[in-house]
Amino acid sequence: MNKNSSNIMALAPNTSNKRETVCIFGTGDFGRALGQKMIQSGYPVVYGSRSTQISSLIPKDAEVLSHAEAAQKAAIIIIAIQRQHYNFLTPLAEVLRGKVLVDISNNLKLNQYPESNAEYLAQLLPGSKVVKAFNTVSAWALQSGTLDASRQVFVCGDDVEAKQMVMNIVRALGLTPLDKGSLLAAQEIENYPLQLFPMWKFPIFLSLGLTAFFFLYCVALDIIYTYIYENKDFSFFIAITIPNRVCPVMALILLALVYLPGIFAAIIQLYRGTKYRRFPDWLDKWMLCRKQLGLIALAFASLHAVFTLVSPMRAFVSWRTSKGIISQVLNNKTEPLNHTNAWLSDSYLALGILGYFFFVLLGITSLPSVSNSVNWREFRFVQSKLGYLALILCTAHTLVYGGKWFLSPSAYKWYLPNIYILSLIVPCAVLVVKFVLILPCIDKPLTQIRQGWERNPKYSE
Amino acid sequence: MNKNSSNIMALAPNTSNKRETVCIFGTGDFGRALGQKMIQSGYPVVYGSRSTQISSLIPKDAEVLSHAEAAQKAAIIIIAIQRQHYNFLTPLAEVLRGKVLVDISNNLKLNQYPESNAEYLAQLLPGSKVVKAFNTVSAWALQSGTLDASRQVFVCGDDVEAKQMVMNIVRALGLTPLDKGSLLAAQEIENYPLQLFPMWKFPIFLSLGLTAFFFLYCVALDIIYTYIYENKDFSFFIAITIPNRVCPVMALILLALVYLPGIFAAIIQLYRGTKYRRFPDWLDKWMLCRKQLGLIALAFASLHAVFTLVSPMRAFVSWRTSKGIISQVLNNKTEPLNHTNAWLSDSYLALGILGYFFFVLLGITSLPSVSNSVNWREFRFVQSKLGYLALILCTAHTLVYGGKWFLSPSAYKWYLPNIYILSLIVPCAVLVVKFVLILPCIDKPLTQIRQGWERNPKYSE
Amino acid sequence: MNKNSSNIMALAPNTSNKRETVCIFGTGDFGRALGQKMIQSGYPVVYGSRSTQISSLIPKDAEVLSHAEAAQKAAIIIIAIQRQHYNFLTPLAEVLRGKVLVDISNNLKLNQYPESNAEYLAQLLPGSKVVKAFNTVSAWALQSGTLDASRQVFVCGDDVEAKQMVMNIVRALGLTPLDKGSLLAAQEIENYPLQLFPMWKFPIFLSLGLTAFFFLYCVALDIIYTYIYENKDFSFFIAITIPNRVCPVMALILLALVYLPGIFAAIIQLYRGTKYRRFPDWLDKWMLCRKQLGLIALAFASLHAVFTLVSPMRAFVSWRTSKGIISQVLNNKTEPLNHTNAWLSDSYLALGILGYFFFVLLGITSLPSVSNSVNWREFRFVQSKLGYLALILCTAHTLVYGGKWFLSPSAYKWYLPNIYILSLIVPCAVLVVKFVLILPCIDKPLTQIRQGWERNPKYSE
Repeated sequence: MNKNSSNIMALAPNTSNKRETVCIFGTGDFGRALGQKMIQSGYPVVYGSRSTQISSLIPKDAEVLSHAEAAQKAAIIIIAIQRQHYNFLTPLAEVLRGKVLVDISNNLKLNQYPESNAEYLAQLLPGSKVVKAFNTVSAWALQSGTLDASRQVFVCGDDVEAKQMVMNIVRALGLTPLDKGSLLAAQEIENYPLQLFPMWKFPIFLSLGLTAFFFLYCVALDIIYTYIYENKDFSFFIAITIPNRVCPVMALILLALVYLPGIFAAIIQLYRGTKYRRFPDWLDKWMLCRKQLGLIALAFASLHAVFTLVSPMRAFVSWRTSKGIISQVLNNKTEPLNHTNAWLSDSYLALGILGYFFFVLLGITSLPSVSNSVNWREFRFVQSKLGYLALILCTAHTLVYGGKWFLSPSAYKWYLPNIYILSLIVPCAVLVVKFVLILPCIDKPLTQIRQGWERNPKYSE
Repeated sequence: MNKNSSNIMALAPNTSNKRETVCIFGTGDFGRALGQKMIQSGYPVVYGSRSTQISSLIPKDAEVLSHAEAAQKAAIIIIAIQRQHYNFLTPLAEVLRGKVLVDISNNLKLNQYPESNAEYLAQLLPGSKVVKAFNTVSAWALQSGTLDASRQVFVCGDDVEAKQMVMNIVRALGLTPLDKGSLLAAQEIENYPLQLFPMWKFPIFLSLGLTAFFFLYCVALDIIYTYIYENKDFSFFIAITIPNRVCPVMALILLALVYLPGIFAAIIQLYRGTKYRRFPDWLDKWMLCRKQLGLIALAFASLHAVFTLVSPMRAFVSWRTSKGIISQVLNNKTEPLNHTNAWLSDSYLALGILGYFFFVLLGITSLPSVSNSVNWREFRFVQSKLGYLALILCTAHTLVYGGKWFLSPSAYKWYLPNIYILSLIVPCAVLVVKFVLILPCIDKPLTQIRQGWERNPKYSE
Repeated sequence: MNKNSSNIMALAPNTSNKRETVCIFGTGDFGRALGQKMIQSGYPVVYGSRSTQISSLIPKDAEVLSHAEAAQKAAIIIIAIQRQHYNFLTPLAEVLRGKVLVDISNNLKLNQYPESNAEYLAQLLPGSKVVKAFNTVSAWALQSGTLDASRQVFVCGDDVEAKQMVMNIVRALGLTPLDKGSLLAAQEIENYPLQLFPMWKFPIFLSLGLTAFFFLYCVALDIIYTYIYENKDFSFFIAITIPNRVCPVMALILLALVYLPGIFAAIIQLYRGTKYRRFPDWLDKWMLCRKQLGLIALAFASLHAVFTLVSPMRAFVSWRTSKGIISQVLNNKTEPLNHTNAWLSDSYLALGILGYFFFVLLGITSLPSVSNSVNWREFRFVQSKLGYLALILCTAHTLVYGGKWFLSPSAYKWYLPNIYILSLIVPCAVLVVKFVLILPCIDKPLTQIRQGWERNPKYSE
């Protein structure tokens, strides 16, 4: 009981707004920024420094003392020095015994050292309680107060009370502490701020490559071919017509690529007769970036939707419409409504709209806050059932729209297939194989395998 | 102090990456999947099993021992066996005394047993510290590493330290623990993974039923009637024209149904003169699914918007436009701009756009992360003020668009009212009654009642 | 060890569903609502009241006793009385010693008292453990069960175990407790429910003012001028044409205003040669509402997109199109495709679509759950790089669209510049200055300053 109340005393001596002193080792940029922010939040700050003369850089209201003197004034010491200078702290081990040391350091590249900086510090000073925190916040953000970005501060440490004390400071600075467990998590926390969308790299490069290929393919067939053989200049197709041909193709192919690895995984498991062997590495990686592939596909589908909707506003389209009407008038006849055309145009529009609708639903459920509020069964239902529904509708949309090109010889300029035909290969393959896989005679053993049954138990040894 | 540090020792013996041994009782599918994942995360795993021979299924690197021997090797024991076999554990009570038992079991249906599995386990082994965890994660997800879905693991238990130890393991596996309090929460946690959108069932069935009704109503009036009496085939209306007539009707009715229960509640409270009596059950249930009704209404409104925007691309619409222009040309006259039409068309479009805009704002604020970041006053402002604004704008949009049909006799095919007239009944009723309710002479007593005043205090006894 | 297990005993005596008694001081509206909810969740509730006669208002199943008697029956006492009556509690100090007191009070305005109500209570009763909770939940919401809004209950307090007990009750009522640290956070928690979008006030008033100005400017130039000098009535422009002129102008200006304060900050820092001096207050405030400005700009851009997309459906536009075609027919000539026009129309549409696309990406990353899942480096990348890309594309979109008006004399009605010209001033200025700032000779010293270098260290003293 005594222990507990003394801890509370330290935090809030007489329940007034007085806050306990915090010591900062190091007067570098981040140390100064953090100190200033703490002073603004009502903490007395004392700096520990080799030289106590560089006071001009230090926030005023802060005291500057030698390391040992400063450490004695506070229960919490923030180590704002670089890892390569940590061994300077070993002579202070006695002074630091029992104190809470907050490691705020970052490295320059991922997994730079075998152990995390915080664990290294804990090894150097086994008598102190090391807590990792603040490394994900930037000095510039602290100083300018523009914390629009994540206010989360990851905290980890082996001593629960030390961690609580640091988390209280984090909260007092207007940030949100997030307990990541014991000091073993320090490595992950130190790697976090160095990442730049690691899961997005492969999907984005794949998309850029495919987009470039399809764009050039369309430029060749739609602009260069027309210019050479028909001597017409359609170079303005580059702005809307061709992007609106590439975007739906990309959306459909990427959406199919989201479901392709699941198909491969099912085939591999059926072939092996067990789920207890690892998939090949490329398949594992592919499966982990399915969400990103799907979101990029959604972005392409959205661009396709908007590019299509603006088409009545295009000068080229108005001109083409006028020309059609005027030629009817000059021929002095009114064409009757072509019912087949009306059916085809309405069906592919309706299929596209419904496919896009389910696609957007998928996108919304992949927002972190939405996917956190559904359970596994609900998530599977949306991502698997609604996802395949979207894929079927989008494939049907493309088939109805592009179907007429399959047989027309004029579609094969330079003996190259039309881009619509290319775009349908992967989704149709996925849908056909998936259809086979859900036949009861194949689905039953697959379900058994996924529940842990093994065709050939010796295999797994 | 001693107690605390020994606990930390157990978690991270010498602050190196060594992790403590975990014991798993049961070699079923989930036990094996969890064991494999733990081994990958650096935990030594020992299985407790009746037979120590079935090693081929067990992940290699894991030891298999008898239950008693395995239990002695670890402080944490994961009970991966089914509830009906829990009584096999009672002879081991002595060995399990003081150990942390992690109940990961799920039931086959909601509230299958009077008490949760975890509480049953705690009753059987009162000397052990039972923690409920991991039941919301699927074995398949753990194994394939494809945790795109929720990474949240609900944890509950009566012993704070035991819970901390389990939460550290959860974090080490790359999942996010969520403390749900004491073991009383186990029932809720066990029910969680069995649900499939429980709050959505009624709104979805209601929407499907109404949609089917209105769809058939439109097919009868727009296709069959026209075919019989005018001998014209407009069957292609099924693809876009009729959906685009049903969607706005559904959106408007469902949006009105969101605000109708609030109206009923106010009337009931005014009539009773107190807020301290429960509403009838149907009203309670209706009020709880208002958010879902609103989101489905938003989905219909979005479909309506897209169906409307694609209309210039439809073959039928182009044909109709051409026909109109050609007939003007052939009559050799140019029609002047009809200012009334220009006003009407621009107004209903503008009203629809603004109504949809506020509707989308409502939808965005109902995203979990957004609604968590606004306070009660702000949420009420958005959902009540902006919601009624959206309802008023959408009703006005329909009135301006469909108004001309009210008086025209041709609108009453087969003496049936046009669908626009049907769609306006509920929203107009809601708006009229709401207008009455905010009159000061009625709003004042209602506000008093909601602040706890009672007209007839005897009533509540 | 003893202390800990006794605490658990209190929470769940014999691991059955029995819950501990809760005492509520005060029988006002919120006290009754909370009591009823607790009874529904299985807690025995006892009220402490001066008079034990007003039982008709109290939920049945609840006991009503004198304050002292009621307090003795429970470990947790909820103080549902107003701050000005807290001093009535001082005579009970002995009875309340060691008990957990839950302060649920709210004030009528922000920072009404020098210290928070909870801290005041803790000062009055230093022997009790005060926890702040429940103040953000409304009585009406508790009673009607319609907790669609935030289920978060902020909890703070100096005693960790008392806080845990209160958080368990919060969870049992189906709400989500959020630990905000020590009792120092009570002031913030008490201010929270009084706010109504405090960060949105300035951006919304600024937008409304600018919108009104531009709207009237357009009405004057497009309707009144045309009416006076050309005697044409275009009053229906008010519904769509003018809003669709004002919205893009507002979107572009507000988007530029998001990036303008960053430009000012860089210039100030370059001029001062240090980052260790505070920015002027207006700049600080401006920087803090950049996210809100950006979201309002996105709303205007979305309205502009929809207003543009509906244009083919407008009666005025159909009439204009028909007139153009008919006049071509009557002149008996077909106009050839104007390639310059085709290029211009396709380019500004494509630029607008891409600009809007990146703008929507920015909007999505500012959703709380998304911005919490990216690190600082990723957030900067999206908000800075993608944001400037969106600004460049949108400015180019406006330049290509409105460029023809710059030189045409007919654009200067009443010698006033066209609205497009006005809209381009701020974004072009921002882009030009930003371009200068990223020149290496200026970027290098700026980066040094932001890393803590000072041109003139004396300055900061």
